[in-house]
Amino acid sequence: MIVPKQKHGGITCAVALSSRIIKPEKVGRGCGRLAVIGIGPGSNDWRAPEATNEISRATEIIGYKLYLDLLGPLIEGKNRYDYPLGEERDRVAEALRLAAEGKEVALVSSGDAGIYAMACLVFELIEHGIMGNVKPEWQRIDVHVVPGISALQAAAAKIGAPLGHDFCTISLSDLLTPWEVIEKRLEAAAKGDFIIALYNPVSIKRRKQLGFARDILLNYRSAGTPVVLAKNLGREEEQVDVITLNELNAEKVDMLTVLLVGSSQTRLLTLNNDKSYVYTPRGYGDKKENFK
Amino acid sequence: MIVPKQKHGGITCAVALSSRIIKPEKVGRGCGRLAVIGIGPGSNDWRAPEATNEISRATEIIGYKLYLDLLGPLIEGKNRYDYPLGEERDRVAEALRLAAEGKEVALVSSGDAGIYAMACLVFELIEHGIMGNVKPEWQRIDVHVVPGISALQAAAAKIGAPLGHDFCTISLSDLLTPWEVIEKRLEAAAKGDFIIALYNPVSIKRRKQLGFARDILLNYRSAGTPVVLAKNLGREEEQVDVITLNELNAEKVDMLTVLLVGSSQTRLLTLNNDKSYVYTPRGYGDKKENFK
Repeated sequence: MIVPKQKHGGITCAVALSSRIIKPEKVGRGCGRLAVIGIGPGSNDWRAPEATNEISRATEIIGYKLYLDLLGPLIEGKNRYDYPLGEERDRVAEALRLAAEGKEVALVSSGDAGIYAMACLVFELIEHGIMGNVKPEWQRIDVHVVPGISALQAAAAKIGAPLGHDFCTISLSDLLTPWEVIEKRLEAAAKGDFIIALYNPVSIKRRKQLGFARDILLNYRSAGTPVVLAKNLGREEEQVDVITLNELNAEKVDMLTVLLVGSSQTRLLTLNNDKSYVYTPRGYGDKKENFK
Repeated sequence: MIVPKQKHGGITCAVALSSRIIKPEKVGRGCGRLAVIGIGPGSNDWRAPEATNEISRATEIIGYKLYLDLLGPLIEGKNRYDYPLGEERDRVAEALRLAAEGKEVALVSSGDAGIYAMACLVFELIEHGIMGNVKPEWQRIDVHVVPGISALQAAAAKIGAPLGHDFCTISLSDLLTPWEVIEKRLEAAAKGDFIIALYNPVSIKRRKQLGFARDILLNYRSAGTPVVLAKNLGREEEQVDVITLNELNAEKVDMLTVLLVGSSQTRLLTLNNDKSYVYTPRGYGDKKENFK
């Protein structure tokens, strides 16, 4: 089974693929375009030109109010659909509904649209509809996903190069994923000596998971393993701290903090001038014995 | 231990940090600036404004020739230091040498500068020098890392949302990492049911690792698990294919292919109009029994 690259764009909506021959068909009215866009974390300086172009092109702009505010003059005069935090399902359904009417829609996420963000939910709703009620008109929409810089990358860049070797990302939210699955994944990541990015470390109600995660990781990593805590990346109030793994607890983070937990190789480098960086060397060299 | 956020910029070079009070000091001549920049994979449309600004600001531009060619008019009139593929250590040492002379240097990587790229090597050389010969003047350089969209993100966006849940990245290159470490990591990633991005799947001499990796993963995942193969992202010759895990072999990829191997939850969605997407739902819902 080979699915060749798809050309999405212009007024072409449905694309028939067979034997690597691309046959664009004009499907006519009722076939809009939905761009699912990652604008990076916070700063407009991290928003790629493709994201800017897609937002400029759209007439309907949907997203969490705070992110849309960041876009400023770029979306002036367009139809804005502001949503509060949460309500992702409503937001995505609205975007699909508008696109199915033939409109040019931009669904805006922070970070990367495909990493703990809206893009997967778009495809979930296209496949399964709402409450099992599949909408054929949603399946004809021309969907275009625009990648962006994710919070873990911005956090890493701010402190040096902690993601210099194999890494993984784990969300600690057990809203949609059972805790035993998350626990098993933490265990696997620790055994595999991955650098670990933790998303959604706490919420207002959910406080204990971060401590559980720390304790699992401490079974495999030294107490002094560097942990990067990054908040409000790309904003005025940006804060990037480094603590050690044994110091980690829920009081040190909020729901928007991204954490990077070092591998056995990750180093805190403090120079004579007191500048500090965290980085992970590219290889294991002759330090294989450090790998547990 | 808390290391507060550091302000890098302007003519401030050394930053003394204590008790969250930032004391910038002007260190004078011999203290340049090194921006380590990720320009995204291939297309200029994925290069964030911060990367463009940093390249504009620098007078010395260092990188793999092909990537520098992509920058076009942006680096006209600047001093160019073209390097062939490989020779990363020479490239980074040259960048540090120039910055230590007080120059404004841009070290350009494809993708994200911190993900299988130059940034970690910059800090390795700052800490350890060349052949154990530490250069104190390199430790005074103002280093600024600029994140970028990595190939795995562009690949994911092109095909849908395969990175919709926890994922990891593994490089199959055993040049600097012993194969048994990589093997252990593949095993852990498979057990943890991560979506797995594989970088450096083969080289001209290294052909067997990808088959070994496939066989490890097949112990945990079904033969039909979707695998995304992405080549030449953001270029004219871009190609994104989907195969199944049991079809994966070294003949299907080259050294610049990025692979995304689905988790137990990842779905190939083929619509009536023959459009196909790969996506991973956000949660496990009531499908917990699928998690091995």
